[in-house]
Order: sequence, then C-alpha cells, then structure tokens
Amino acid sequence: MKTRDQRTAHFAKNNSNLTAYIPVPKAESLQKTRKDRKLCNSLEEAILRSGLKDGMTVSFHHAFRNGDMVVNLVMNKIAEMGYKNLVLASSSLIDAHFPLVEHIKNGVVRKIYSSGLRGQLAEEISRGLMDEPVNIHSHGGRVHLVKSGELNIDVAFLGVPACDEFGNANGYSGKSKCGSLGYAKVDAEFADKVVLLTEELVAYPHHPASIPQDQVDLIVKVDEVGDPKKIGGGATRMTTNPRELLIARKAADVIFASGYFKDGFSLQTGSGGAALAVTRFLEDKMRKKQICADFALGGITSSMVALHEAGLIKKLIDVQSFDKDAAESLARNPNHIEVSANQYANYSSKGASVERLDVVILSALEIDRHFNVNVLTGSDGVIRGASGGHCDTAASAQVSIIVAPLVRGRIPTVVEEVITCVTPGENIDVLVTDHGVAVNPTRLDLIESLTNAGMELFTIEQLMEKAYRLTGKPKDIQFTDKPVAVVRYRDGSVIDTVYQIAE
Amino acid sequence: MKTRDQRTAHFAKNNSNLTAYIPVPKAESLQKTRKDRKLCNSLEEAILRSGLKDGMTVSFHHAFRNGDMVVNLVMNKIAEMGYKNLVLASSSLIDAHFPLVEHIKNGVVRKIYSSGLRGQLAEEISRGLMDEPVNIHSHGGRVHLVKSGELNIDVAFLGVPACDEFGNANGYSGKSKCGSLGYAKVDAEFADKVVLLTEELVAYPHHPASIPQDQVDLIVKVDEVGDPKKIGGGATRMTTNPRELLIARKAADVIFASGYFKDGFSLQTGSGGAALAVTRFLEDKMRKKQICADFALGGITSSMVALHEAGLIKKLIDVQSFDKDAAESLARNPNHIEVSANQYANYSSKGASVERLDVVILSALEIDRHFNVNVLTGSDGVIRGASGGHCDTAASAQVSIIVAPLVRGRIPTVVEEVITCVTPGENIDVLVTDHGVAVNPTRLDLIESLTNAGMELFTIEQLMEKAYRLTGKPKDIQFTDKPVAVVRYRDGSVIDTVYQIAE
Repeated sequence: MKTRDQRTAHFAKNNSNLTAYIPVPKAESLQKTRKDRKLCNSLEEAILRSGLKDGMTVSFHHAFRNGDMVVNLVMNKIAEMGYKNLVLASSSLIDAHFPLVEHIKNGVVRKIYSSGLRGQLAEEISRGLMDEPVNIHSHGGRVHLVKSGELNIDVAFLGVPACDEFGNANGYSGKSKCGSLGYAKVDAEFADKVVLLTEELVAYPHHPASIPQDQVDLIVKVDEVGDPKKIGGGATRMTTNPRELLIARKAADVIFASGYFKDGFSLQTGSGGAALAVTRFLEDKMRKKQICADFALGGITSSMVALHEAGLIKKLIDVQSFDKDAAESLARNPNHIEVSANQYANYSSKGASVERLDVVILSALEIDRHFNVNVLTGSDGVIRGASGGHCDTAASAQVSIIVAPLVRGRIPTVVEEVITCVTPGENIDVLVTDHGVAVNPTRLDLIESLTNAGMELFTIEQLMEKAYRLTGKPKDIQFTDKPVAVVRYRDGSVIDTVYQIAE
Repeated sequence: MKTRDQRTAHFAKNNSNLTAYIPVPKAESLQKTRKDRKLCNSLEEAILRSGLKDGMTVSFHHAFRNGDMVVNLVMNKIAEMGYKNLVLASSSLIDAHFPLVEHIKNGVVRKIYSSGLRGQLAEEISRGLMDEPVNIHSHGGRVHLVKSGELNIDVAFLGVPACDEFGNANGYSGKSKCGSLGYAKVDAEFADKVVLLTEELVAYPHHPASIPQDQVDLIVKVDEVGDPKKIGGGATRMTTNPRELLIARKAADVIFASGYFKDGFSLQTGSGGAALAVTRFLEDKMRKKQICADFALGGITSSMVALHEAGLIKKLIDVQSFDKDAAESLARNPNHIEVSANQYANYSSKGASVERLDVVILSALEIDRHFNVNVLTGSDGVIRGASGGHCDTAASAQVSIIVAPLVRGRIPTVVEEVITCVTPGENIDVLVTDHGVAVNPTRLDLIESLTNAGMELFTIEQLMEKAYRLTGKPKDIQFTDKPVAVVRYRDGSVIDTVYQIAE
C-alpha cells in the first residue's frame, strides 16, 4: 500500500494540469479569513485597498436619485487623492452631481457612461466640456455593455443604508432607505472590486441580502449615503398639472380600448408626470370590471404600492423605487419583489421582465413623424434627460404608449425629426397627446380595436401639423462637429449622436 | 443640422468598435421574446434544444439526496437518444444513482465529478469500472472548480418542485419540496444552458426566486423530480444509537469547555449520526446560561429548526436542507436563509459563511495520528462516502471537532494512516470518541481551556493504541496501480488518490 504522499505525487505527476496539496497551518488560514477583514477605517483606506489606479473605471448606482451623496463623496476623495483619467460609470447622473464638472476639468474623470445627465453637468457637457463623448445607455443596455465586456468595472462604490461585517446588504433596512438595489446588484456581480459605503453595520447574517457577502470586497461606514426624501423629486414626482392629468386619463382610455386591459394584465409607467399619473385613472375601472393586474414593473411608485395593497396589482417587480413610500414598501410587502437590471430589462439576458409586459406608458421630450422618441435633449439641443428603461420597455411591451403634451410653451413636441433619437419609432405603438391620439400605422390591430371602441384617431403627421400651427415650425439648432454624447441602443449599437451646441 | 442617419454614421465610422443601430420590426422582436419560448413539450425536446453534444458536461444537484429522480430520468433519456462520452457533474451521487453503472459501461458517461459515491455505483467504480478516475470534490471546492474553468458545465438539468413559465423557481413551493437550492444556484449561474425540470408551472412572477428567470433557458414539466421523504434518510437520519448519543454528549461538553460557547456563537453539524445529534445536547445549557447562537450553518436539520423556532438560534443559513421538515421551514421561517454553495463554503469566494463559523462537528470513517480524516473509503478500500463540506468547514471554523466511535465492529477508527485523506490534519482541532478526547497539539489554546474545565485528554496516539488493543492493527488493503478516484482539496489541489481494490 502506497503512502499518501506517494499516492498524491503519483497522480499529480501524471496530470500536469493538477497540483498537489500543500499544507497551510490553521492559524495562518484563519488569519487570512479574519471576520473583520473587509472593514476599512476610512473611505481613503477603502479606495487604497480597492487597488484603484489611474485610468480605471469606477461605478455607482442612482437608487437615491437626486438624494444621492455617494458619487460626490467618493469622487471628491478620489480627486483629493490625486487619481486621474478615470472612467465614471453611474447607472445615471442627476442635478446633484454637478461637482463632477470640476473633476472633469481637472482631469480626474476622462469618460462617462450614464443613462442620463441633468442640470449644470449636462449643460457644460453639451457645451463641449469633455474630450470624449458621454455614452448614454438604457438601463437594460448598461447591463449588456457590462456583460459584453465593453464596460469593465474595476471598482464599484455602492451606497447602502445598512450591511453586516461581511457585506450582506439591502436597500430597505436602516435609516436612509433607497428601496430596490436593482442597478447596484449588477455592479456587485460584475465589478472586479466592490466597496460598500454603509450608514450602519448590523449583525451577521443581515438578511435578505440584495447584495450578498460573496460579491463584496470592502466596507466603509460613512455618515450618510443619501436622502430618501429626494428620491421622489423631479421626474418621479406626482403631478397635479391639469393638462398632464388630462393626457393620463386619455392614455387610460387607450389602455381600456386596446384589448390588453383584462384580468392578469401587466403594466409599467415610466418617469414623468403624465406617465406616472396614468395609474390613478386605471383604479376605478379595475374595481368595476374586477380586473386585477398580475404585476406592475419598473420604477415602482407609491401609487403602484397603493394599488398593490388594495389587491388590484398582485405583484410589484421593482428595479428602482421611485419614492420613499415605495422604498419602504419593499420591506413590508412580501409580493413587492426586487430585481436586478439584468432581470428587468437586458435584451441579452435569458429572460427580462420587460418581455412579459403588456402595456408601458412612457414620456417624451419630442416624438417625430416616424414615432422616434427623444427623451434626452431639450429643444435647445442641451442634454436634460435620461434614456432610462425607455427603449427597453418600448421594444418589449405588447403596447407602448407615449404620453406628451402636443406643445410645451412655444415648442412643439410632435416634430418632423427629433433632435436626438433614443427610442426608435418601430418600438412605439401609440402617441397620446392633449390634442389627440395617433397609432403607429404598423399596428393595424390597435388601430382596429381603438376605432371599434369609438376613439378618434389622427395620423402623427396630422398631430405634427396641429402642433406646428400652434408654434410654427421650430428652427434648426446650430451644432458644431464635436460629438458630446453618443446614444447607445439597448443592444449596444449607436442609435444617435449629440453634438456640441454652437454658442 | 445633420440628419439622424448622418449623425449615427459619422460616429460609427470614427469608432470602429461600435456598430450602427439596425431597425428590427416590433412584430419580429416580440416573436423572439415570446412568453412561452422556454417551455418544452418533452424532456427529449429540452435535451435537443439545449444543444447537448457528445463529450459535453452535464450537471445536477443533489438536494433530494436519495430521493432524487432527476439524474436517472435525464441520463436514461440521454442514453436512449444515443449521446456518448459525457462528463457527469452532480453535486453528489447517492445509492439511488446505481443506474449510472450501465451508462458508464455503455460509454454514455466518460468521467464523473461528485462530492461522493455510495452503493452499487461506488462499489463498481472502486473495482475499476471507469477508465478515468472520478474527481471527488468538497461542496465549496466544486464551486471553485466551476469558477476556475476546469469544470465548465455545458448543460445543467435542475429539478425543482415548481417554477413559472420564465423559470423563476424555488425549492420550497409545490409538492416535492427539497428546501434550499444551494448547489443548484451555482449551476444555474455558471452553466451555459440551464434546463429546469419542474413538477408544476405556477403564475408569473414566482417568488422568491432562488433560481431567477435570467439564468434559465428551457423548462420541461415532468411527473416527479424527487421524494422529500427520502432526503432525511441515510447519512442525515437522526440517530437513536446509544454509543453515538454518548459521543454527541461528550462533543457538547467539549464545546461548553472550549471558550467558544457564549452568546452569539455559531455552529454547524455535519452529516452522520453523532454529529447531527450534538444539537440536542446543547439545548439545555443554552437555556440555562441564556446563550443564543447567532446562526447555525449547513446542512440544516429539523433539530436545528426546532432550536431556531425556540429562539435559541437566531438565523439558519442553509445550503442544503437535510430533511423534509427543514425543507418546509425555509418557506415558513423568514430567518431561515438560503445560500448558494459559493456563499456557503467556496474558499475563493469573496466571503463564505464557513469563515464565520465558531464550531463545526464532523464525522469520520477514519482519523489518523496526524488528524487526517477519511470520509470517503471504507476499511475495505471501497468508496462509500462523500467529501461534502468536511474540509471546507474544518479549515474555516475556529474549532473543528471530529466525532467517531473508537472502533466500529472489529475495525479501528483511529489509525496510523488513513486509507484516504479527504481533510488534512492541520484543519482538525479535536477528536471526540467514546473512549476519550484528543486535541491537535497545535491547538495549545484548546488544550488549556479543556484541561482547565477538568476534561481528561489523551494524545491521538494513545487513542490509536487503545483502538488497536481492541481490534488489532488493521491489515493493509491490496490495491492495483489504477486510480479510480482523485480527491481534490477545496482549492482544487490533489490531496489523495483512491486506487482500484485488488480482488
């Protein structure tokens, strides 16, 4: 009988791809797996230990929306530590992130990936602040860029309200609840190094773990990661504007007449006043006709939560909680379900929830004769919006409805050609404005069902002409030849380019 | 102002890594993402659509243990369809899987990865059935082999009691509940193609999703995937053997005296009668001293569930439910937490729960003078066991305790050299037998605390000599030079080789 050494050596010798076991004293292996090994005493220590180097890619999530404090906190520290030439990949960027302007000017940030840009940062970028154009992606498209290797995240800095010493975290425990960590989940899974910034350290094992311990490298306690009261501001605020409510009511009528309004249907409402307001006009008829939705997807708002708690929507599938109430519901309601952005909307995932969507209601800054939609640039050519889940849901839902006022002030919404195309016309089925409804001519089925329901339909050219009669044809904006943003469709392809506005 | 086509073309031209958007008509994209596209009418259809080819690797989980029906169902169909030369990677193989013998003889299965082998299959393999040795891995080690690329799973066939049309599944809904899908979660994440075999299709979205929709390619409904009543048989049965109970009581005394028995401690009990029985001897003292464990890990049994429901163990971290009761508890108890094998025990994960373990109690078929442990081969050299989480937990826990009778019949358990080393002695801290306790001499701290508590300690040589006095020194077993199994340590290295027994 051979000894163990002989047996092991014999085998390893004949199998060159295998190595023989080398003993490690227990004290040594216990030292390596010390329970507190992930904890850092300061953000600076976390950045150092993450191995961040000039030129690398850092990422963030935007679950706190305009209440986010992590991007600025981390980027200020990174700047202070002297890093240069970084790629910044945040799932989105909002008004609060204006301090990035300085970091771009100082060479700390070289390139940006984001779903959108707003406020001063967007303004300066539109005026040519950056040498490289910003990559604007959809929420699903971002995951595709990550998984395909183009967007290789070196270090993800993810803010959470609470986690344990090993990194198990969710967004609905602790003080500053952001709700779903749908975007953060992707970064936690794919980033080389994951740093959690947490307001609170809780007992192990923290549960449920939206971000699990085996995806977390380092943890640092900070005073604040975000202000939940500011999640629901801006594009996710509930409207009281009478015109938006009128459009929302019309959109509800389109849904009722579409043939898809039946027990077990599913829906999503995108950000923007009229889109979010559609929910409230569905409730009465759902009760009367005893229609219950199987699920609502998104972007979950307090109105969705109310319908869910009233038993009118069975389940909420939540990639991003659109307000404080929705964030809190995730802890309270067992059928309020958190999903990653991959499960939500990535076209190259094995199955995204958007593919099971009957109806989506979306906003637009502009929509053109070919139903192409602009949700990114204003009428002055300046970036002031976000791609979000717009093209992901429009491409996938059985019925995608755009809600928009026909004109805004002296500016037409329905135009000959959009300044920037984010969602291509072939994805859009219906346009609902305060001056009438138009159906994409490829959707003969919808034209038939809406007409049968007695709805008056217009061609989109007719709506455009109505708009132009009110405002006149808009003048061309003058751009330079310098691209400031490239718009990536959900499959990563280039669907449009935004140029620097000429002063 | 450029047209959209000009803008897009301009950018794509100057960025050769990017492609320009190509429109896809909505009807076409909706057809591609049809809601029922994953459903197969038969197992044969699922196998065909999975793209399985000769020589590929197929995988399975063993959550149903000896009640599993999926391995045989799928492998019989695969054999019938004429596939050859497959690599079979099941997280473990048990007595029920004896029909694999025929598939090996017929060239359907060429190579096996498994945590263990039992019954007729193990017997035949020990006698030289296969040309290539079986790779025996630990539960954590399997994940390491998968993640490191050695074990590249082409098609995972995963049995679940219920899932929805998109593949969201868990193991604790439906009829045949297996509880935690801790092993299956790894295969679902890493296999190229994932086929779910389900007993029941339920409404979308099924929740909680232990296996989420974005990891599932195909779904086929079958009559039965497993028999939950058979999960708790064999190595996970609760003992009534007085000697095993005596050893379990002694092990509890070691825990009490170790210095690790205090409020907030954590524990795991491995499979095997005495190990599983330790739990029941902890309860009294936990109540008296008002000691509550933060968590129990493992292999969760009904006794663990009882302690949890009595408030003595705060949380259960469950990679595998060891009986029907534990499987059902997962649905009922919010602090009964399911984890993947990566989160449980992979040494190369970013954080495995075993690393937070204070005490683990493990079984042994043999243990030698150097504390090396054999849990794989019997005294006749025939394979009859499994690596399981043995070395993963022993290496990681602050105190790893082996419980074993000093002799079994006329066969010593404590020996000069183990026939097969699965867990190396440097991972083992204490041996508890019915004839005395030995502490690894490297653990001076434990020797001190146990001595201070008044426990009589022996050297392991003394215990070996006691055993040999009762049984005589065992005769060497005769092996041929043909390796039948190679034992991989948790880091993938070769720790031992099992040879064909000479007839």
